Amino acid sequence: MYTTDTIIALSTPPGSGAIGVIRLSGPDAITLTNEVFAGKDLTQQATHTLHFGLIKDGNIIIDEVVAGLYVAPKSYTKENVVEISCHGSNYIIQQIINLLIKKGARAAKPGEFTLRAFLNGAFDLSQAEAVADLIASDSKASHDMALQQMRGGFSNELKDLREQLIHFASMIELELDFAEEDVEFANREQLRNLITHLLSHISILISSFELGNVLKNGVPIVIAGKPNVGKSTLLNALLNEERAIVSDIAGTTRDTIEDELNINGIIFRFIDTAGIRETADIIEAKGVERTLARMKQAKLIVYMIDALQTPQELAEQIKDLKRLEIPFLALVNKADLFTPERKAEFAAHEVLFLSAKDGIGVEELKTKLLEKVNLHSINTAETLVTNIRHVEALKNTENALVNVLSNIDNPVTSDFLAMDIKQALYYLGEITGQVTTDDLLENIFSRFCIGK
Amino acid sequence: MYTTDTIIALSTPPGSGAIGVIRLSGPDAITLTNEVFAGKDLTQQATHTLHFGLIKDGNIIIDEVVAGLYVAPKSYTKENVVEISCHGSNYIIQQIINLLIKKGARAAKPGEFTLRAFLNGAFDLSQAEAVADLIASDSKASHDMALQQMRGGFSNELKDLREQLIHFASMIELELDFAEEDVEFANREQLRNLITHLLSHISILISSFELGNVLKNGVPIVIAGKPNVGKSTLLNALLNEERAIVSDIAGTTRDTIEDELNINGIIFRFIDTAGIRETADIIEAKGVERTLARMKQAKLIVYMIDALQTPQELAEQIKDLKRLEIPFLALVNKADLFTPERKAEFAAHEVLFLSAKDGIGVEELKTKLLEKVNLHSINTAETLVTNIRHVEALKNTENALVNVLSNIDNPVTSDFLAMDIKQALYYLGEITGQVTTDDLLENIFSRFCIGK
Repeated sequence: MYTTDTIIALSTPPGSGAIGVIRLSGPDAITLTNEVFAGKDLTQQATHTLHFGLIKDGNIIIDEVVAGLYVAPKSYTKENVVEISCHGSNYIIQQIINLLIKKGARAAKPGEFTLRAFLNGAFDLSQAEAVADLIASDSKASHDMALQQMRGGFSNELKDLREQLIHFASMIELELDFAEEDVEFANREQLRNLITHLLSHISILISSFELGNVLKNGVPIVIAGKPNVGKSTLLNALLNEERAIVSDIAGTTRDTIEDELNINGIIFRFIDTAGIRETADIIEAKGVERTLARMKQAKLIVYMIDALQTPQELAEQIKDLKRLEIPFLALVNKADLFTPERKAEFAAHEVLFLSAKDGIGVEELKTKLLEKVNLHSINTAETLVTNIRHVEALKNTENALVNVLSNIDNPVTSDFLAMDIKQALYYLGEITGQVTTDDLLENIFSRFCIGK
Repeated sequence: MYTTDTIIALSTPPGSGAIGVIRLSGPDAITLTNEVFAGKDLTQQATHTLHFGLIKDGNIIIDEVVAGLYVAPKSYTKENVVEISCHGSNYIIQQIINLLIKKGARAAKPGEFTLRAFLNGAFDLSQAEAVADLIASDSKASHDMALQQMRGGFSNELKDLREQLIHFASMIELELDFAEEDVEFANREQLRNLITHLLSHISILISSFELGNVLKNGVPIVIAGKPNVGKSTLLNALLNEERAIVSDIAGTTRDTIEDELNINGIIFRFIDTAGIRETADIIEAKGVERTLARMKQAKLIVYMIDALQTPQELAEQIKDLKRLEIPFLALVNKADLFTPERKAEFAAHEVLFLSAKDGIGVEELKTKLLEKVNLHSINTAETLVTNIRHVEALKNTENALVNVLSNIDNPVTSDFLAMDIKQALYYLGEITGQVTTDDLLENIFSRFCIGK
């Protein structure tokens, strides 16, 4: 159903620019373009060639363009594809798209080019999803993970796991066919070893999601501390620009400031908030709830005090924060106001002295942040699961495999065994798209941008 | 100086999209790209071909891309050009551009690709300017004019005029060389005829600017009338959306509402204001000045009254407006409240009855607008000057030619004659760029977008 018509969309971002690229894919991509193209006969040209010409609606010239041809199956979608580079005016782009729709093309839905590439076997579903992640990537870490997934790293790993299971599945099926003869085709010991191996592998993948997710979406860091302790100044120093609005009215900006900082290719998302105790002091109970909720999502809490506070106050805060069971880092701001004796009073706690106003200690803080969230050196070449859909499927696979293990020695249940192995295969297949439903595809590709 | 280095820029609009196109131009465009491209050897490929491969920084893969090759002189700039289609992520685009800059490319200045195309003779200056106009075009009229200019319509006309003058210029030069022999190489009668012909042609071009300019930038229409007479409602009905903020406080929104409507491919810019008399009634003198200033810029004043006003009031307004010597159109709004007898009272004036609230009469108004500004049918195939720089140069040419005419019969001044003809040629040459200065080029191309 997907490859009978020809779709069209603008593939470059909307807006004025030097050029815009309009993409067509489908059996008629080349012949339709040829109908409105004054230049060489596009239907007679080789794949991977560029042709200068005019787009004309009858006698009316719409633009001078370059048409890039990709003849099936040598294209992104494996279908005939034409990419028309025109002048980057919205008026011209609309005219060309409308003209080709009039000639028989259909406006593409979001992600429909990539959907076709998937359906035509150009890549599997997790690779297709990585295309969207790659476009959205805004840091080295998120980029590297998406690229690795797009290039099939994750897919190959799953393919391996799946193939090993498939072998046993067919053996067990054979046993069922010969059930009355009580033959054991599938070696139980080997199967047990395999399942154990698979489970440990899957468990690693599942637990990689925590890291993969923060690398993809940013590491949430809460900066807590009393009003006017210098949190906003610190954010500004970290971000090296006047982003956070420093306000005199306590609490006015506290809940809205969220900013991103790229340290060593990893995005840290900073959330400015009061400490628990401070929140309790100042605002109503709802405020405390909200602050606690935000803190619980953090990978690290940075707690800040200044010269007006004592080591005792810090100790109390530390006690409060320890209950949250989240790593934390204590900062003592306005360190320029501290005498050495004053500093020594904090010796009982691991603290970092800094002066946010002057930018002193900010670089040390960045290094400390990487250490504290254990991201000082990441090998993004190893597979990290970054997609919640994949984690769900992996967890379902895990459950099915655990059932296999528990039934493995029960001779009367080789049909249960077969069922559980099939289940595991089903869930693994969901990730890469060997198993799909229309809803699943709709859900995945509707999140893509138009023209991809 | 321009063609010794290789420039690079993003040619598609910034922002997330399916693809982004990075363009390189210069002698090393292909070799530089090849250094970071894993795939075929790009230096060995034919012009106008597309090549799939990886962009790599050492061992690190940045993206899967398609490189489009244009081998000099068969490119937009007449230099070697590579267009790299990558995934439309800002992170990836920046990485690729930075990598190629590290390898030796230079970040292109705004319009530098088009500047090179001009300097390498791909087209003349007025055509280069039309490229920017084409990208900015947002209506059929502005698009058609820019495209015609880009495709050389205006240039050819100027080339014609210039060539005819050049012939006489060389004849006159000859006379100067043989000054002592008193020979007349240039036939004065023919020269007079030519100059007269040129002057009339140039005068047509100069006066076409008024139309060209409104077609390019929109036809300014003032909608005047008492507060609450329904001007904002009419604007909304015309624009078919709730754009104008209808306010109860007289004068609050009046000066800021300006909106655009496309009628038959022509942009009309509507300016909502009070009438002169009303302004005088309500606001201070400064307000009247401002209203008058805006009205004087209009191509048409639409004056609106409603059921609460009398034909006598309309007559007074008409008298006021006639002093401005701008075409106007009287609208009677809320026509549903009028009895036939009431309507008959307006018979002395040309009025259009409508009901803005219900959209009745709005289509007739659109037709009337086109008629009143004399744009009912425009032939944008004929040359319309749309660029203030061109008009200035044409006016300077005109002055020089008038001097030629007044000196033509004076035998002692063939050197003045030569000078004036040279002046005329100079100014004509400025338009198409036979004559340029660095300042002029800087001024023109700095207005382009990056990547064009």
